[in-house]
Amino acid sequence: MNVFEERTRRCRDRLAEVGADAAVLFPSTNLFYASGFREEPMERHLFLFVPRDGDPVFVAPEMYDEQIRDASWVEDLRLWADGEDPGGLVADLADEMDLRGGRLLVDDTMWALFTQDLRETLPDATFGLASEVFDDLRVRKDEAELDALREAGALADEVSVAARELGEDAVGMTETELADEIDRLLSARGGEGLSFETVVGSGPNGAKPHHRHGDREIERGDPVVLDFGASVGGYPGDQTRTVVFAGDPPEGYEEVHETVLEAQRAAVQAVEPGVPAAEIDRAAREVIESAGYGEQFTHRTGHGVGLDVHEHPYIVEGNETELEPGMVFSVEPGVYLPGEFGVRIEDLVVVTDEGFERLNDSPRAWEPL
Amino acid sequence: MNVFEERTRRCRDRLAEVGADAAVLFPSTNLFYASGFREEPMERHLFLFVPRDGDPVFVAPEMYDEQIRDASWVEDLRLWADGEDPGGLVADLADEMDLRGGRLLVDDTMWALFTQDLRETLPDATFGLASEVFDDLRVRKDEAELDALREAGALADEVSVAARELGEDAVGMTETELADEIDRLLSARGGEGLSFETVVGSGPNGAKPHHRHGDREIERGDPVVLDFGASVGGYPGDQTRTVVFAGDPPEGYEEVHETVLEAQRAAVQAVEPGVPAAEIDRAAREVIESAGYGEQFTHRTGHGVGLDVHEHPYIVEGNETELEPGMVFSVEPGVYLPGEFGVRIEDLVVVTDEGFERLNDSPRAWEPL
Repeated sequence: MNVFEERTRRCRDRLAEVGADAAVLFPSTNLFYASGFREEPMERHLFLFVPRDGDPVFVAPEMYDEQIRDASWVEDLRLWADGEDPGGLVADLADEMDLRGGRLLVDDTMWALFTQDLRETLPDATFGLASEVFDDLRVRKDEAELDALREAGALADEVSVAARELGEDAVGMTETELADEIDRLLSARGGEGLSFETVVGSGPNGAKPHHRHGDREIERGDPVVLDFGASVGGYPGDQTRTVVFAGDPPEGYEEVHETVLEAQRAAVQAVEPGVPAAEIDRAAREVIESAGYGEQFTHRTGHGVGLDVHEHPYIVEGNETELEPGMVFSVEPGVYLPGEFGVRIEDLVVVTDEGFERLNDSPRAWEPL
Repeated sequence: MNVFEERTRRCRDRLAEVGADAAVLFPSTNLFYASGFREEPMERHLFLFVPRDGDPVFVAPEMYDEQIRDASWVEDLRLWADGEDPGGLVADLADEMDLRGGRLLVDDTMWALFTQDLRETLPDATFGLASEVFDDLRVRKDEAELDALREAGALADEVSVAARELGEDAVGMTETELADEIDRLLSARGGEGLSFETVVGSGPNGAKPHHRHGDREIERGDPVVLDFGASVGGYPGDQTRTVVFAGDPPEGYEEVHETVLEAQRAAVQAVEPGVPAAEIDRAAREVIESAGYGEQFTHRTGHGVGLDVHEHPYIVEGNETELEPGMVFSVEPGVYLPGEFGVRIEDLVVVTDEGFERLNDSPRAWEPL
């Protein structure tokens, strides 16, 4: 039984536990997790029905026939051609699986276009979210998943060092030029695709936590937030360093960097099985609050990372989920001084039986390498 | 009144026409179209409520405060911090806008995570799709939109020529290496981001219409499907050529290429106001069927292109939508011979008052440039 088939078996066990009749997946990481077939969300009907009892079935556009058969262990495909109405296929399948009055768990990222359509096709069904089943399955990574995450971490480390070695040469580049260079390095060293759009936030742009990159030229002495990663085997890397390529940083920067680094260290050190996720957030926040920057740390400390670059467990106030071995998440405190600069430092960590393992190990100091 | 505010005004008029009380948008191209703020879908609550009466309001994570204010004309932001429950903000806003028993049009790409949540927060509301309002507004492009699409078309043309000039040098490159080079060229010449993952389908991989790129090395004589584009001003390019970089193509290839090229020409020539979208599909299909490849043309002829790279109007059998000036779509017939090769040729066209304007003009012949 291959790993995807085994996961589908566990999915069906979970469906029984939560009292649902089927999961209805849409191109997503859940669909990949269960089937081995990877695709982006699209405006065409492409579903995987995983019934509690019986075998899973794809409903898919005809043109995906070969790709699904190549990628997935699932053998039952119901294909529709452009110009045909896929609603009939869905209704027939619901009859066959006896789902018309059932409880269906739809993919959390399924578009409203399709959830509305399912509600119309199956007016007597009730609906919940597939995360009821998948979150629990996916939150603890197996060894193959951890190996892929380790590789993605090592790739981000390598590229972090290579980018920082630009040194003086980075001065005068625009943020976008530097982002392109980072993207090229990630791909050239085996990345399968970016985990997210690379962030190069120079000077005041670094104070916008979700700035990507723009026309601004990097100046001497600019703190620059570099946040990037690429996938390996479907699993994304995600790492942040805040660096100065050349020259002297602005007043106050060194203290802020030291504070964020200390907060990151304290939070990582707090990771061990049994500790609530919120406790890791608190460990970072205490350091930053004592230094007087509490108001400038405007986001949660981290997010789980697996097939999705943002997934459970979230490292945030109020999340009392207890950490378990195999969980993987980011630890990324930050301080943002609007109009001046921002500092964020991020590594991924795995919860181990005894404590934690860091997946990133490139230099965290801000000084030019 | 800026262009985004003007669009929001028209959105409100349309809400009245279709008998809905508000549109509830999620990070999407509809949200950008109305607000000027662009962001990827995310697992945090970020909504724009556009009521039929009254001003639009953002519900957003606190950390997006500055970015939304920089990008959007919308002034009313209700912010929530990580660790807080945004459901309360949504419920209060629904009370304020008197939406509890209303008809709400949710963004077509809104995740089930949020549509389920809205249904729970507002159990007496009824739900439809925002496309009821936005499709009609967005399907006819204004001059500023057409200019951006022209620039994106010219960029794809330039990069198509630059990539083909690799000639012999492309032989021995892997598909992924060539895709990386195309991506670099797109970004270096001003592309803001890829329209979609670049397709380099060499030899038999070209016969999989949705293959991206892989480890396969390009060989002499391989037909290679190159399908790519990048955005300019938020509007994507999208162009396909099927080329041979060096050497002689396999038997039968020339005839297939000539057939697809003729089908593409016939379909483009059929474009004028008042013609049903399905007619354009038929024009391409007739050429390919007469040549005996009907079964190998497994997809629709095209899709609308605007802020979304796939949007209305779809050029497909059964779509009786009449073409109107300002509509923009792809014309991209293809023939796929599994295990051998595929051929697809694609340009974007605008419907004009008299007929059509092509947005792509790079060489369509397969021979090395």
